[in-house]
Parts: sequence; structure tokens; C-alpha cells
Amino acid sequence: MSNPLFRESDIAFLLHDVLHAEELTRLAPFTDHDRSSFDMTIESARRFARNTLLPTYKPTDEEPPRLTDGKVLVHPRLKAIYGELAALGLVVAGRPPEVGGQHLPRVVHTFATAYLMAANLGAYGYVGLAAGAAHLLETFGSPELRATYMTPIYEGRWLGTMALTEPQAGSSLADVATRATPTPDGSYRIKGAKIFISGGDHDLTENIVHMVLARIDGAPPGTKGVSLFCVPKRRVEGTSLVDNDVAVAGMIHKIGWRALPSLALAFGDRGDCHGWLVGQPHRGLNAMFQMMNEARIMVGMNGVATASVAYHESLAYALERTQGRPVEAKDPTAPQVPIVEHADVRRMLLRQKAIVEGGLCLIGRTAIYADLAEHAPDASVRARAQRLLDLLTPVAKSFPAERGFEANALAIQIHGGYGYTSEYVVEALMRDQKLNSIHEGTTGIQGLDLLGRKVVADGGAGLVALREEITATAAAARTAGIDERLVVAVTDAVSTVESLTAALAAKGLGGDVGGMLLHSSDYLELFGILVIAWQHLAMAAAANTADQDFNSGKRLSAEYWIATEIPRLTMLAELCRSGEDSYRRVRAREL
Amino acid sequence: MSNPLFRESDIAFLLHDVLHAEELTRLAPFTDHDRSSFDMTIESARRFARNTLLPTYKPTDEEPPRLTDGKVLVHPRLKAIYGELAALGLVVAGRPPEVGGQHLPRVVHTFATAYLMAANLGAYGYVGLAAGAAHLLETFGSPELRATYMTPIYEGRWLGTMALTEPQAGSSLADVATRATPTPDGSYRIKGAKIFISGGDHDLTENIVHMVLARIDGAPPGTKGVSLFCVPKRRVEGTSLVDNDVAVAGMIHKIGWRALPSLALAFGDRGDCHGWLVGQPHRGLNAMFQMMNEARIMVGMNGVATASVAYHESLAYALERTQGRPVEAKDPTAPQVPIVEHADVRRMLLRQKAIVEGGLCLIGRTAIYADLAEHAPDASVRARAQRLLDLLTPVAKSFPAERGFEANALAIQIHGGYGYTSEYVVEALMRDQKLNSIHEGTTGIQGLDLLGRKVVADGGAGLVALREEITATAAAARTAGIDERLVVAVTDAVSTVESLTAALAAKGLGGDVGGMLLHSSDYLELFGILVIAWQHLAMAAAANTADQDFNSGKRLSAEYWIATEIPRLTMLAELCRSGEDSYRRVRAREL
Repeated sequence: MSNPLFRESDIAFLLHDVLHAEELTRLAPFTDHDRSSFDMTIESARRFARNTLLPTYKPTDEEPPRLTDGKVLVHPRLKAIYGELAALGLVVAGRPPEVGGQHLPRVVHTFATAYLMAANLGAYGYVGLAAGAAHLLETFGSPELRATYMTPIYEGRWLGTMALTEPQAGSSLADVATRATPTPDGSYRIKGAKIFISGGDHDLTENIVHMVLARIDGAPPGTKGVSLFCVPKRRVEGTSLVDNDVAVAGMIHKIGWRALPSLALAFGDRGDCHGWLVGQPHRGLNAMFQMMNEARIMVGMNGVATASVAYHESLAYALERTQGRPVEAKDPTAPQVPIVEHADVRRMLLRQKAIVEGGLCLIGRTAIYADLAEHAPDASVRARAQRLLDLLTPVAKSFPAERGFEANALAIQIHGGYGYTSEYVVEALMRDQKLNSIHEGTTGIQGLDLLGRKVVADGGAGLVALREEITATAAAARTAGIDERLVVAVTDAVSTVESLTAALAAKGLGGDVGGMLLHSSDYLELFGILVIAWQHLAMAAAANTADQDFNSGKRLSAEYWIATEIPRLTMLAELCRSGEDSYRRVRAREL
Repeated sequence: MSNPLFRESDIAFLLHDVLHAEELTRLAPFTDHDRSSFDMTIESARRFARNTLLPTYKPTDEEPPRLTDGKVLVHPRLKAIYGELAALGLVVAGRPPEVGGQHLPRVVHTFATAYLMAANLGAYGYVGLAAGAAHLLETFGSPELRATYMTPIYEGRWLGTMALTEPQAGSSLADVATRATPTPDGSYRIKGAKIFISGGDHDLTENIVHMVLARIDGAPPGTKGVSLFCVPKRRVEGTSLVDNDVAVAGMIHKIGWRALPSLALAFGDRGDCHGWLVGQPHRGLNAMFQMMNEARIMVGMNGVATASVAYHESLAYALERTQGRPVEAKDPTAPQVPIVEHADVRRMLLRQKAIVEGGLCLIGRTAIYADLAEHAPDASVRARAQRLLDLLTPVAKSFPAERGFEANALAIQIHGGYGYTSEYVVEALMRDQKLNSIHEGTTGIQGLDLLGRKVVADGGAGLVALREEITATAAAARTAGIDERLVVAVTDAVSTVESLTAALAAKGLGGDVGGMLLHSSDYLELFGILVIAWQHLAMAAAANTADQDFNSGKRLSAEYWIATEIPRLTMLAELCRSGEDSYRRVRAREL
């Protein structure tokens, strides 16, 4: 049986029974949609992902793009299906009709693209990056830029990139050094080096539109002097496409996402690289950060998808592979049992399941908040949804990356020696997953963002809203007859997080910012445990389908997660409070 | 600066200040040794590893052995240095002079080979496997077998393998199906298929001696019908080497240890595969298990070595790579700082350090116990050392594999996007590490071994001895002025483990073996936390060298480990006691 990527039943359950996505159709932009249009979009992505994209995964992993004569050639299997991928229209599906989209709610769009991610994460990358680039142009670009460079992307004819990172700056965008020199015609001449540019060159489309962070001559130092530019590989002049002096300086040999090249690009080596300002001068990071929530949640979805496909691989293997006998068995002539019969194998499966399902529910929920934040008629509803979205984004980005990586390693472990070979796909999935803790802000940066900004913003309003949400879920869980101990464990955990947050914020307000943020990684982890426990409680409460095994499976995931992880939350909270500061004190020469 | 693999200071400190290895020279077999002979052996391995072996690592990882016309050809770089590797004599150094060795104490031998492992784990594999095979022959083989097949291995002219695993059996050795048919000359004809045979074929030496588990015709089922055979690739007939009908059936494409091929082997396809019984009929697993402690501790050493080299890579990177500014900094024009200045990077470094140093100390300690168990004049000392060795082996095997893997992932994380590329070595090290949780008994099997056998053997005598050892370390720590809170945390943890063990054993004695073993993975993890905390306490107590930074570095590792991990031990112990049984109850159809 081939890998389902995500089960139909799980997606339908989350969409309709847990997240009530149909309620979104009451909002103005979505009134043309209904359950069947949601399902159809997802089904078309699912079919393409399972039947067409998944079979390209191993070939594209084994043979990454080649750099020949300064040009990047992608795998022929990918070229062959690109037309079909573009025809799905997922780059534009979530956008309004004015730009050619169907205004699909984000949660539906996210679950549809999740199938692409699960089937071939690198191949999905082209779509995700193009959508991000076009969306920046849509929001901040001039009408002319939109017509010239956004429309072809939305039509699937061109692709796009995000060109932020520079060799000397990495995560530190304050240190971007690419220069933009104004010219009389209003455009800029761009000069600088970017690195790790995913999809920075390829032969899938005739043009590539780079969204480039650069500094206008004379701009102030730091993040307040960084502007955003549209810099195409080939610029439009009249009806022609003219080479725009963007050269491939080198290809990075990545360990995963190998359908997608990662490049070092040189802008303006010949002095002929034209760029157009997108948005206000020096406000490039602002523009970027408006997209950042979206990008980070997409990375979270990448992580869940990669863990999901590995979970299903290891489940199928555990059901089929016979080995050994139960610990109580005495008769060595009895047939060997499928390894799913061993409790420790079931532990590894249930843990993967809990990570994948919890992560997927969270990503879906943040997508709902994103739509409410943008489209709810009531300003206070919008503001509240935005707060929840902001608060949950660091968790949605990092939980799937970190615990998904653990899940991917468990999928290998279940395969035993076979998992350690490239004949099975689980090792490749683990390599794919590792990037998600690094790109779009490392896990360390997510921890600083959560504790240093998100939980303390607006006097802690996000946390207040989170408690309200969890309280509502707890009430629903009680109504559904969920074990009171599970409900109480989750609501108590909210109190633990609240009081810990207050204590840490007080430390920061007292002037010890370093002390406040010292355990930000532990804080991120414990916060994630709570947020995922909440998802499991919500799923357990809603698990009232016709399929009793499905329902009890959801309840067991919830039991497992809450019973095994909430104690860890408590422990980590004590650690955060304890003042344990060994790694603050350790000096480089003591390492 | 090139990677030190392990620092001289760390090895010397453990050997002399913590583990007092010189005391072993009072034991009969080691009286010819002294500190300088220990240091010389380690220094020669260190020099070879750093200067000659480490430079082969990337080439051999990038180009694994090739299978051509049924023969395996290793990387030319490896062929070129094999003579020098063999000349180190590490295959035989630990063995007595009667077989050509120097009777080097195991701890010294282990630390010497650790350098080879850290430099190129796959290349070390040939040495480790050869030593294991020859040692089996030495202990259980007839004088003739020893002369014919053991001596050439000990002389470095041939190599050897362990051929246990079969496609249908995997970890379940009770299901070994390879057959051995007696012949009138006392030898056997072997027929069967083995898989995952590391070093099963290659062109480094003219012959390879396989130690093969097989079933003599008519043998009882299960583990009690499995015998051990010596089955050479080419058998000795007179003065010639004759092809012995061992064919390469396929090569496995492993994701790590790529200097070393892993093969499927077909024994006796032509009916002409001769094997010689090693030890008693049907007692093959007994013989194997006498070597198993040793093999598992070697795997533990593999894990520590792989984490150590990655730690040093990431430390060097963190000291050199500048990026960003401290969280308190406001001036964006200030120069960027080396990333080691960021607290969260130091956390990731200190965590790696604590894992590596704790693991190395544990491996060294088990090696001391192994020597005492074999050579102490007093029978009760021998028995006690054996108990401690047995008890600690599952931890020594699995802790470096599991936490070492985490350390390897942190080394990638510190490298950021660069760590995700094959230009840097940290991703390859993570691939190497992943095998250690699988081979020589998976982590799940180590958990069952620890809780199901080791802690309950002899009425729990191992745990009694462990408490005595930790109590002695605690006294030394107090004398050395170590913070009383750290000492108490560790001794309290012993009590936690003791009472938990009693409770679980009672459950087993009450007939619920499945319930007793349900949380064996959690038990293994918490037991490992305690054992490593003990090592850190011992190192902190002994850290009184002339180098104050070294001393305080050790104390900070201890503080970090005890403060952050002992609470996890407590939490896991509560979980083990709680009766939480979600994954016992979950049925396959609910997954």
C-alpha cells in the first residue's frame, strides 16, 4: 500500500469537526466557498501529490540539480511534471479574484499544500517561495510592478525567491550589506552577494523574480536601513526579457530538499542589475515580517508533513514486518509477530502520531486565526486573532521542526537496520526535516521571539486570549466526557505558564533581559507542550465520528501526550524559574 | 585549527585523575605497564588518527565501496593507509602476549581506539570487527582453529566479521535459520543467508574470517539451538587459500559508516561452504554474549567519539563565526560577535560537552570494571566488577547513541545553514551516529535488558554495588568542596531509582511482566541520567589540575547536567510508576 501522506479522515476531521472551517464561509471573501469546494481543492492536491509527485521523491533526492555553465538544471522528472504542478494553481489559490485567485481560506490552502510537502518537500519549495514573493509584490508593490512581475508568478509561468541571507550576516538581517543605488528612472542598481537562495536559479520557468533585501545608499545602519527590492533574473523591457545581471556564484550541496537548488547569487557584478523598490524605503524588514508569520507557519507545515509521511512509512512497516515474540512468550517455535505487537514499537508509533496530529491541528488553527485576523468584520475579533496568531507562530514554526525531527528519527528506528539504508525513504525524510529548525529563523530565534516579544506584547494580551481558548476547549472536553484528569492537567499547565511568564517578565522589567531570556529555549519547548496538549484535548473532545477506532485513536494520542509531556512542562518551568545559569556563566575557554 | 577528536587533557584527566588507571598495573597481566606505556599507546593512535585517518573521512564518506563483479572494492585512500592502520596493532594490543598482544588494560585500549572512531568510524569498523572475531576464536576456538584463523587476524594480515543477522530474523536471534550439516571430517557445511554484514567483503586483506551463527541439523528451536561457526571467505587447505563458497549477494547502501561496506552474504550456494564449530554445539549465543558486553561498550565508544568530533567542530565554528549581537546590545554599528557569545549557543555547546564527557567517563569506567572482572585476584572483587559491568552495559551502549545523536544534531544547529550542507562535516557525523541506536541491540532492546535482566539479577546486587560506588563518589565530591546541592541531587536520585526498581520488580514478580517492562525505554533513559550524573560528580570532584579553566569547565558540565537532567529523571520515574499505559492499550487499527 502506498503512503497516504495524510489520511483523508484526519484532514476531514480537523477541517470540519475540530476547526469548523466552514464557519469561515460567513466571512466576506469566502462566501462563495462551501464544504465541497474545500474538499475538491484538497482532493486535487492529494491526487497529484500521491500519484504524480510522490514518485519523483526518491529520484530527485538521489540526483539533485546540476550546475552547468552557470545554469542550474533540475531533475528531468521534475521538469516533466512542473506544468501539472503549476496547473494546480496553489500559488494563487489563496489570493483574491482580483489577482486571479479563488480566495481559498488559508486553512484549506494549507492542508492542500501539505500534501505537496509530504510528497516531495523540495518540489513544493518552488511553489511556496513563488507564493511568498508574489504576495509581497501584491501587498507592497506598485501597480506596474504587480502587473509586470507578480502576475506571471500567480499564473504559474514564472517562479520567485526570497533573497535575504548574506554570507557575513546569516540570521542577522541587521547586517545586510547588499547595496541599492538610485537611478533617475526610479529604479535602483543592485550590487551584492546572497547565499542559501532556494530556487535561486533553475530551468523550470523562463524567469525568476527575486525579492531582495538591500540597503539604499546612505541608509541608516541596522534593521532600520534595509529596503525590499524586486530583482528579476530577466527584466522586462518592452516585450522582451533582458538578462538582469544576476549570476549564479555557486551551488550549495544541501543534505535534503534536494529537488530544490540552493544557490549563492551575485547581483550586479557587471553593474547592470536593476531592482525596483517594494514598499517604503528602509521599511524592507517590516514588509518581510508581514510575510514572516505566513512563512514560518509554512515551515511548521513542512515539518508536520515530513513527519507525517515518515509516520505512515513506519506504521506500514511495523504492521508488515514480523520479528520476535511478545515479552511474555515462551515458545520459540511460535510464529514471529508483526513488530507493531511490541509495546516499545507502539510507543514509538504513538509518539509519532501524537506529534504529527498535534502539529497538524496547530497549523490548521493558526491558519484560521490568520483568516480571522484579516477578514473578521469585528475589529476586536481581528485584533484578538492576530494576537493568537502572533503568539502561536514561534511554536507552530519550531515544534514540528524539533519534535518532528525526533519523530523522523523514530521512524528510522522502527525500520531497524533497513531504516539505515537509502533503500528505504525514512532516512531521506529525516534529512529533509533537519532544515526546518534552521531556516526562517532558527529554533533559538523562535524562543527569543516567543519569550522576548510575543508573550509580553500588549501587556500579555496574547496569553490572556490563549487561556480563553484553552478554557473553551476544556469545557468542550468535559461535555464530551473526556477524563477529568486530562482536562485538569491542561488547565493547570496554563496556570504554570502564566505564572512563569509573569516571573520572567518581571526579571526583564527589572533590567535583567539576559536573565529573562536565558532559558528561552526551555520556555519555547514547554510552551509548545502546552499548545500541543490543547490541540489533543480539542481533538479528543471532537472525536465523535462513525469510526470508533478513529475516535479512540484520537483519545489515546491525547492521553499519551498529556500524561507524558505535561510533567515535562512542569519540570521545564521549574528549571526556567530556578536561575540555573551554567551556560550563562561558562566562558569560551571553559568549553 | 584541525579537530582534536578528543583533547589530550580530557583523556589524561580521565585516565589518571578520575579513573586511576595506573592502579590496574597492580593486577598480574598488567604489571609490565605504567603510565608512560599507556600514554605512548594512546599517543600513537592519536597521531595516526589526526594526521592520517581523519583526512580520509570525507573522501570515504563521499565514495563508499563499490561492488564490481561480485567483489567489493574499498576507497583507494583506505587501501593506501590500511598497512599503517594494521601496524598500530590495536586488534591485538589488548590481548595477552601468548597470542601476540601486549595485554593493554581495556581502558587504555578503548581510549586509543576512540581516536580511530572519531577520525573515521567506518574505517575503525574493520579493526573492531576483526578484534571481536579473533577474540571469539581465542576464547572458544580449538588450538587448530586459533592457529589457522585467529593468528592471521591478530597479525593484521586478515580481517573478520560477525555474521549474526538474517533477513527474516533481524534482532530476533532465536529465529536464525542458517544451517550447518556435520561432515565426517568434523567440519560442517554451512548454508544460509546473512544480511547487514559489516566488512563482509572487501579488498583490504586476502582473507576474511566470518563468525557465523547457524543451526546444526536437528538442533532445538529458539536460542538454545544456535551454534557458532568459523567460516572463512577462503579456507586454508595445506598452504593454499581455497574459495569457501561465501558469495556477496548484495551491497546495502548505508547512510553512514561509509568507509565500511555492509553486505548481504550467501553461504554455501554451491554446497561447498566449510565451517568449523566454535565452542559447544547449541551454545553459540552464549559465546556471542560473552563478547556482547565488549561489543556494546565499543558501540557506546563509537557514539561518544562521533559526538566528540562534532562537538569540537561546532565549538571551533562558534568561536570563529561572527553573527549578531548580544540581546542587550542596542548599537547596530557595533561589530558582530562570535556566536559563542550568545547564551543559547553556549547552551548547545555545554550540552554537547556534558554528553561527550559524561559518556567518555562512563565508557572508561566500564572498561576498568571489565579488567577487574577478569583479572582482580579477589573473587568477590571480580564478581562485583562483573555485576557493575553487566548493569552499566545497556547504558554505556545506548546513552551515547541516543544523547550523542542529539549532540550531533546540536552541532549541525550551531552551524546554521552551513551545517545543512555537505561542505561541512557535521551532517555526515550525524548520519554515522544514527546506526548506534540500531546495531548490537537496539535502544529498545537495551531497555528490556536493563530492566528485565540486569537490575533484577542476583536480587538486585548490581544496584547495591552501584549505590556503593556513587556513595563513594559523593564522599569524594564533598571532600573536594563540590556544592552540596549537586551531591544531594545525585544521591537522592539513587534512592529514586532504587525504589522505582523495587516497585517495577514487584509488578513483574506479581506476574505482570508486560506491565513491569512497559516503560523500559523511560527506565533506561532515567537510569542513564543518573549514571551520567555520577560521572560528572566524579569529574567535578577530581578536577584539581593546574589548568583552572579546565577545572571550572568540568564543574560547569556537572552543574549543567545535574541541574537540568536530574529533574527529568524524577519526572520519568513518576511516569514509570504512574501506570500510564496508552501505548500498551493502543491497537494497530487505532494508529
